[in-house]
Amino acid sequence: MELTTVREIFRNREEYLGKEVTVGGWVRSVRDSKTFGFLVLHDGTFFEPLQVVYHDKMENFAEVSKLNVGAAVIVRGILTPTPQAKQPFEIQAEEVTVEGASAPDYPLQKKRHSLEYLRTISHLRPRTNTFQAVFRVRSLIAYAIHQFFQERDFVYVHTPLITGSDCEGAGEMFRVTTLDLEDLPRTADGKVDTGKDFFGKETNLTVSGQLNGETYAQAFRNIYTFGPTFRAENSNTTRHAAEFWMIEPEIAFADLKDDMMLAEAMLKYVIRYVLEHAPEEMNFFNSFVDKGLLERLNHVVDSEFAHVTYTEAIEILEKNNKNFDYKVSWGCDLQTEHERYLTEQVFKRPVFVTDYPKEIKAFYMKLNEDGKTVAAMDCLVPGIGEIIGGSQREDDYEKLTQRMDELGLKKEDYGFYLDLRKYGSTRHAGFGLGFERCVMYLTGIANIRDVVPFPRTVGNCEL
Amino acid sequence: MELTTVREIFRNREEYLGKEVTVGGWVRSVRDSKTFGFLVLHDGTFFEPLQVVYHDKMENFAEVSKLNVGAAVIVRGILTPTPQAKQPFEIQAEEVTVEGASAPDYPLQKKRHSLEYLRTISHLRPRTNTFQAVFRVRSLIAYAIHQFFQERDFVYVHTPLITGSDCEGAGEMFRVTTLDLEDLPRTADGKVDTGKDFFGKETNLTVSGQLNGETYAQAFRNIYTFGPTFRAENSNTTRHAAEFWMIEPEIAFADLKDDMMLAEAMLKYVIRYVLEHAPEEMNFFNSFVDKGLLERLNHVVDSEFAHVTYTEAIEILEKNNKNFDYKVSWGCDLQTEHERYLTEQVFKRPVFVTDYPKEIKAFYMKLNEDGKTVAAMDCLVPGIGEIIGGSQREDDYEKLTQRMDELGLKKEDYGFYLDLRKYGSTRHAGFGLGFERCVMYLTGIANIRDVVPFPRTVGNCEL
Repeated sequence: MELTTVREIFRNREEYLGKEVTVGGWVRSVRDSKTFGFLVLHDGTFFEPLQVVYHDKMENFAEVSKLNVGAAVIVRGILTPTPQAKQPFEIQAEEVTVEGASAPDYPLQKKRHSLEYLRTISHLRPRTNTFQAVFRVRSLIAYAIHQFFQERDFVYVHTPLITGSDCEGAGEMFRVTTLDLEDLPRTADGKVDTGKDFFGKETNLTVSGQLNGETYAQAFRNIYTFGPTFRAENSNTTRHAAEFWMIEPEIAFADLKDDMMLAEAMLKYVIRYVLEHAPEEMNFFNSFVDKGLLERLNHVVDSEFAHVTYTEAIEILEKNNKNFDYKVSWGCDLQTEHERYLTEQVFKRPVFVTDYPKEIKAFYMKLNEDGKTVAAMDCLVPGIGEIIGGSQREDDYEKLTQRMDELGLKKEDYGFYLDLRKYGSTRHAGFGLGFERCVMYLTGIANIRDVVPFPRTVGNCEL
Repeated sequence: MELTTVREIFRNREEYLGKEVTVGGWVRSVRDSKTFGFLVLHDGTFFEPLQVVYHDKMENFAEVSKLNVGAAVIVRGILTPTPQAKQPFEIQAEEVTVEGASAPDYPLQKKRHSLEYLRTISHLRPRTNTFQAVFRVRSLIAYAIHQFFQERDFVYVHTPLITGSDCEGAGEMFRVTTLDLEDLPRTADGKVDTGKDFFGKETNLTVSGQLNGETYAQAFRNIYTFGPTFRAENSNTTRHAAEFWMIEPEIAFADLKDDMMLAEAMLKYVIRYVLEHAPEEMNFFNSFVDKGLLERLNHVVDSEFAHVTYTEAIEILEKNNKNFDYKVSWGCDLQTEHERYLTEQVFKRPVFVTDYPKEIKAFYMKLNEDGKTVAAMDCLVPGIGEIIGGSQREDDYEKLTQRMDELGLKKEDYGFYLDLRKYGSTRHAGFGLGFERCVMYLTGIANIRDVVPFPRTVGNCEL
């Protein structure tokens, strides 16, 4: 169908003013008097709606006046400037065709609904202002991330979702099976016969694509993943979902410093992209969701990220221990309260905390010369805390296997990973960015359930 | 680390000729004489390797000469034109630093390995020419698809992977569970107590994001998905994988014609993008994998796709029935042999087959006025057969529920989907593109296992 989008009209208004346009969209509100009426029309392509004036010269004047919120219409008319009004222009309609009416029990009325209520109608909530803004910005962030890496010739790698190994041990996993749970096959000793499962063994949903990603970095040098990951953790917080998307770049011939430069450049790139491509949405968030959002994001774009070692950070935090629920001391993991204190109170900008004790980090991180810490980095941002976690990887075969022995990891489970250290090993590094956390950070939305189209959390798997 | 990439050197050679460069990469071959030697270096950023000449003035001349294939080195030297040689330039090395040696049992030697063998070392095969080309092109295709839709202001929607419903009934599904299979909780009547599972009910991996996608198209008008989907089908063919990626655009205020225009524009866009951005890789495929590839793709870009109804197609095919393994008649599903005959022999270009019998298509497809066929389309391309399947969706509440009744589908399972027909229904359409099939089509690679980094098929879930 030859329709002009509302986005096209707003962005290139000079081309359309005074001319006939045909627009399809959904009715946000109807107001009528005896001889004419107003429709506020939203077509999903642009944050702002378009006002339509219609008249009783139309045959279906009564039908249009009785339309309920949510109805779909196609409007043909002249785009007319309205210098006295709030909106810059309106359509003086010559024809309004009802594409699809909206039943009287339409759940979205003009009043403001709570986010909690809207979560119960996840198929309709994208029609509201808030979720129009959230999910357009989510889409733009995803694209900005691809663009950032592709402009730098990184290869996008689809690492597998179904995995036969719990490589990172990073969290509880979901089992994937085609066995009939009501009639499980058994081996001679009475155990479930996983050899009869689809893949001939036990399989789970991945918690990270990193180890697979490293194999491609050792071939393409610079790669990134962008795909779903899963955690079967029984945590009912505003920051955890069972299914979420992650970005995991991996770079060869690179150390921790290169890794941090990449992370900083990526975050700034994405923020700039969204500020430029979704100004209406970002203003909406700044006005109605998180008052300091734009100031904070602009500040991030303009500032150099700070750097502090874990050891220095602990010294700073210990001085403030009386104000923390969890008291810190060297060797402990940082909680969100500590992370936010560092980035919001101490540094007042994003900060990289580096060189964590090896005991609280994963086995594959590169051991520093002190023998106690590893070349890890977490990037902390105001309002969120940790948004990125990364490290230089242990590229030395001997040191890596020694660390695996210490942790009781079996070498035969990691043959492919050790091969990378046997055949042309390079210093290399990477990080993980939780995509939903990034969307929360850029929109000010406080609950992860409100930045995922159809969120999956403990006890919740609707639609 | 400050390294220049081989891509940068090849693409902007004038900037680097005669100057010092430092390059990191992996050794493809070493040849030495008494006083000097050659390294062929590949850094993963560019299809062509770079030749390095090194001399016995270097302290580590002997070490370098003994390097095995696959070793990682960093080379500093002058980029020097070689007008007499096959390659356009080489590095006259001043320093070669060994970053990581390669053990003598390195599985990739200079000889050509079979694709079957390389599948057994999926962590190393991306280091070969063939898989360098395949996986760079795969990455470029993915990006081209995003760029195509984003340039047109489509919203990218992440539809869920874990789903509580088998909405489309499109195939066998993988069960997702956190229940302990060795100790399943039971209800009073002895059945597995799915209420105790992570989500409080039975869940599976999705086979399609379409129905979820439609809810977003009715809010944003134009959306697309690009994510993994799963089929637990016990089929061991060259075209089926248990885990694969799909692109599913969905457009509101649009009919089947709009849908086909979108599909054609997308395919042409992606082909053009890859021809432009990976000329070396595409030439490689054309020379070593599929001799007619470039001619075929260029022809697709330049031709208008053909259109034929299913009924007309059957008439054409019936005349050739003697040559088919499966004889066709009106009402039957088309097999690959029929699809390829149509696109390769009859039309000699991509062809849309439209208006299939409703019995062989999904419940949600729009019933045509004849009451027998639905507004479906399959796009067939030479060398592959069906690459895209789509339809206009039934937007009429009464017709949709009638069709669901005929098929025994329960309305209560599709409440959200029916809501879209109650509240501002619009004519709308969409299609699905199997991403791997698209990669096969653009590279000429014949087995799906060779276009997925870590393929998952029956009995196979390595790494």
